[in-house]
Amino acid sequence: MRVNGEAFRTIWAERDHSCFKIIDQTGLPHRFEIVTIKKAGEAARAIADMWVRGAPLIGITAAYGLALAMRDDPSNQSLEAASELLASTRPTAVNLRWALDQMAAALLPMAPRARAEAAFSRAAELADEDAALCESIGAHGLPLIAAAAEGKDGEPVNILTHCNAGWLATVDWGTATAPIYKAHDAGINLHVWVDETRPRNQGASLTAWEMAGHGVPHTVIVDNAGGHLMQRGDVDLVIVGTDRTTARGDVCNKIGTYLKALAAKDNNIPFYVAAPSPSIDFEVRDGLQEIEIETRSAAEVTHISGETDDLRIETIRLTPKPSPALNPAFDVTPARLVTGLITERGIIGANETALAKAFPERIVKQT
Amino acid sequence: MRVNGEAFRTIWAERDHSCFKIIDQTGLPHRFEIVTIKKAGEAARAIADMWVRGAPLIGITAAYGLALAMRDDPSNQSLEAASELLASTRPTAVNLRWALDQMAAALLPMAPRARAEAAFSRAAELADEDAALCESIGAHGLPLIAAAAEGKDGEPVNILTHCNAGWLATVDWGTATAPIYKAHDAGINLHVWVDETRPRNQGASLTAWEMAGHGVPHTVIVDNAGGHLMQRGDVDLVIVGTDRTTARGDVCNKIGTYLKALAAKDNNIPFYVAAPSPSIDFEVRDGLQEIEIETRSAAEVTHISGETDDLRIETIRLTPKPSPALNPAFDVTPARLVTGLITERGIIGANETALAKAFPERIVKQT
Repeated sequence: MRVNGEAFRTIWAERDHSCFKIIDQTGLPHRFEIVTIKKAGEAARAIADMWVRGAPLIGITAAYGLALAMRDDPSNQSLEAASELLASTRPTAVNLRWALDQMAAALLPMAPRARAEAAFSRAAELADEDAALCESIGAHGLPLIAAAAEGKDGEPVNILTHCNAGWLATVDWGTATAPIYKAHDAGINLHVWVDETRPRNQGASLTAWEMAGHGVPHTVIVDNAGGHLMQRGDVDLVIVGTDRTTARGDVCNKIGTYLKALAAKDNNIPFYVAAPSPSIDFEVRDGLQEIEIETRSAAEVTHISGETDDLRIETIRLTPKPSPALNPAFDVTPARLVTGLITERGIIGANETALAKAFPERIVKQT
Repeated sequence: MRVNGEAFRTIWAERDHSCFKIIDQTGLPHRFEIVTIKKAGEAARAIADMWVRGAPLIGITAAYGLALAMRDDPSNQSLEAASELLASTRPTAVNLRWALDQMAAALLPMAPRARAEAAFSRAAELADEDAALCESIGAHGLPLIAAAAEGKDGEPVNILTHCNAGWLATVDWGTATAPIYKAHDAGINLHVWVDETRPRNQGASLTAWEMAGHGVPHTVIVDNAGGHLMQRGDVDLVIVGTDRTTARGDVCNKIGTYLKALAAKDNNIPFYVAAPSPSIDFEVRDGLQEIEIETRSAAEVTHISGETDDLRIETIRLTPKPSPALNPAFDVTPARLVTGLITERGIIGANETALAKAFPERIVKQT
């Protein structure tokens, strides 16, 4: 999407295969810096240190990292070592392992001398596939916003989103943001309420930065404010992303999503989840019972970073020293609160029947 | 309540009437400092600059400020000027005006030479009355926690609270915290989930500091986390304060309260509001329609203050510079989501009939 008028992806390779480039997301929203990655080891570091984040983008970064390794040494041993190095950076990231498996499947059968070229091609394909997947979510979500616009008499459609399910988490378009970009680009008058999303503030730092860069009207609010805005009629539609959606439509997403879903239900506001099919886990049914929620560092609650008036980045403590903090990273929104799932195959009800019908090849047989 | 083992109120006068003392709350939780107020003008500054906050405490600070003015010049003119100065500090604070009216009613009929002594006495009475009011809310709320403890088999009762309706907002005990302190002091095993309460973080800074000082087990969480904890069975009871409760039991309180009430309802968790009767407004019925919600500065959303590792207080920006922010300060929790109101006359249903029965002298006749 656009940054100050210029079109960007989150990751792209140089034609001569000398390197690939990423946006260093750790500096956002205060610093916009492009980083050049020339070695597989640097790619591993970019993932481990979270210069890139978001499941799809991590996978593509690993794929390009492997391509750099193949350029430097296309042997089986090098392929294995680079895969292991890259996979170890974020051990629980399913997409990361998946992307590396895709690469290995393409490269292993080949003669070593053909691997570098093929690796860059395959990584580019994976990147393009991810962008296309997200764009199709945008295309399927766009009519929801267009329909909402019809009742607004020229006033902007107000869309609330939580966390960053934006293009910065993918190669382009994002998931929850894809319908928003499509609608904005189609000239629909819209405005986005951006939930701050404590504790890591991905909304206030990343989603707001995306919206500002692409020119989408938006306003940052604290996570506490969304319910009030819904009560006052100031939200027409909620669209969020998902880390994992179950076979019956329970949605695991960034902590706080459940509270917004409750408020949407209480105020009869449609609550949509942008769910590319790779994020749907057909082996899990009851999200509340079966999904283990990651507990992250308490320091994310007790401390926060930002920019001082004189442009220094500082980390400050918010809480009393003796007070402990707990930091559950995700919550589960029960399917009953979800109006629909926006997938690359269209909008699907958040229930077992609809999901099975839309993705018959993914159904896990009960044994 | 206690600070590191020592009993404190938020405000107290010296016996010789040379001054009164307050806790400078702007330094909390990082600095605990007692400020000496010797002149009415300093009292006005303490209110205006929010060294003290919380409706009851603001009122008592104004009352002592007026007493200092009477000590320096007990004339009618001085009484009027000091009242005006003190009332202007926070024009919308109802308690402030009320406390000054109480003082004027006591002092105006008197000979000027008797006023200083009487003013300090009356201010002390108002302070004691506020502490007693809060303590009686504690006494009425205690059985709720005791009853919850019975089902816990020795495990702690988990209580969630939002914002700071603590002793720092009153003279002592607080409102939502009074039942917690009573139960803790009675030896009931309990633990408090302290909502951070963005944007001003009164939970993370003030409530957590109170709990730590008084030795109450507690954990700070971001505002997004409460719903998840309720889903997992980790919350037994919610107790919050209120800025204004209507004749039919709608509760206006710090932004985000409504979201916690929705989650409590969805998980069958009792949701109580500590509501001293001065905070009940019998002239308002429909909280959503009739209460205008204050919009505060966007800077409270875009910036935040805290302490660096080397103990400097810094203010940092959290959002991209081009992104606007909106900061509604309160929301309204409909009565249907409120299990009960903890008042100084006992626990009352959040409905018009129960409120009218408990406070018959307050009923506003429809004309």
